[in-house]
Amino acid sequence: MRKGANTRHAILTHATGLASQVGLTGLTIGALADHLQLSKSGLFAHFRSKEALQIQVLEHAAASFVEAVVRPALQQPRGEPRMRALFERWLEWEQAEALPGGCVFVAAASELDDRPGPARDRLVELQRQWLDVIATSVRKAVETGQLRADADPEQFAQDLYGVMLAFHHQSRLMGDVRAETRARCAFNTLVAAARP
Amino acid sequence: MRKGANTRHAILTHATGLASQVGLTGLTIGALADHLQLSKSGLFAHFRSKEALQIQVLEHAAASFVEAVVRPALQQPRGEPRMRALFERWLEWEQAEALPGGCVFVAAASELDDRPGPARDRLVELQRQWLDVIATSVRKAVETGQLRADADPEQFAQDLYGVMLAFHHQSRLMGDVRAETRARCAFNTLVAAARP
Repeated sequence: MRKGANTRHAILTHATGLASQVGLTGLTIGALADHLQLSKSGLFAHFRSKEALQIQVLEHAAASFVEAVVRPALQQPRGEPRMRALFERWLEWEQAEALPGGCVFVAAASELDDRPGPARDRLVELQRQWLDVIATSVRKAVETGQLRADADPEQFAQDLYGVMLAFHHQSRLMGDVRAETRARCAFNTLVAAARP
Repeated sequence: MRKGANTRHAILTHATGLASQVGLTGLTIGALADHLQLSKSGLFAHFRSKEALQIQVLEHAAASFVEAVVRPALQQPRGEPRMRALFERWLEWEQAEALPGGCVFVAAASELDDRPGPARDRLVELQRQWLDVIATSVRKAVETGQLRADADPEQFAQDLYGVMLAFHHQSRLMGDVRAETRARCAFNTLVAAARP
């Protein structure tokens, strides 16, 4: 049982890294078998279908995201330090070695937005949870008086998502070395605009 | 000749709409033949390869983008009116009926960023031209004194790209009806932060 769980975890880690490059749609059981030099039938025994594999990759990536980004940031004092920690760790996640193609959710979002089904439904839930974490961190910063009473948490969450998507676009596609500095600058501008 | 060019244009218009939904990678000659109820061999005669089709879809979409967004916006007075016209027409483009899956460049960007080749190279050139149009509009607004002398045109271009990517994400994937209002609000905040 334990060994089976470890194997499954190791396979999902590789599958998530591969999905960051080829997308969730490109992540077939055959492609994963080639990548891992495992038998296709062995992988079928683990995952049953391409769709089940996609959903488990989303779950695996979400659990990793919580460990790498959300949990440590929530240990920071609420208000601006926590908002900044969420942002900085999100930037690190986007550039993690385990995700050679960048954030797997970014790739999945533009692939699945026109493909109704369980994988899209799960992605939307996970993205909503993450947007809620950002919005809640803004609400706490309003409560502590660090941000203006009329700062809009949902507006901030959409704007911060934009900062990260633009960073992904400029660094991954355009190969622009200044993308990260600009992303930090954009975060500071957003926070400054919401201060009392 | 004329009839052939019209047929090719009509096929590329459909192909671009299809690519907005299934992505450039999903846009095979076979998928396009099914979509148009044309013979695969007839389409092969037009496009020769999947990669040639992908590049021609990018060229076709870029020409449409110039007609729908860039050319009319450049008729506005330089400075803030032109920046606003570029942004508003970009918002319209993203929601055009001809692109049922939204901006084809957004889909292409996250698909091709890890796939070196001529299609990626052409996409990067086209995106650089568009980012330059935005940055130039900011430079003109600085020259006319509508924006601060130290406003950074490349920072603004990356930030505005983020506003549009977040709009795409929130409206297409999350189905959030407030996404467009928030995108306009984000544009206004960006401009306000750059005013003297």
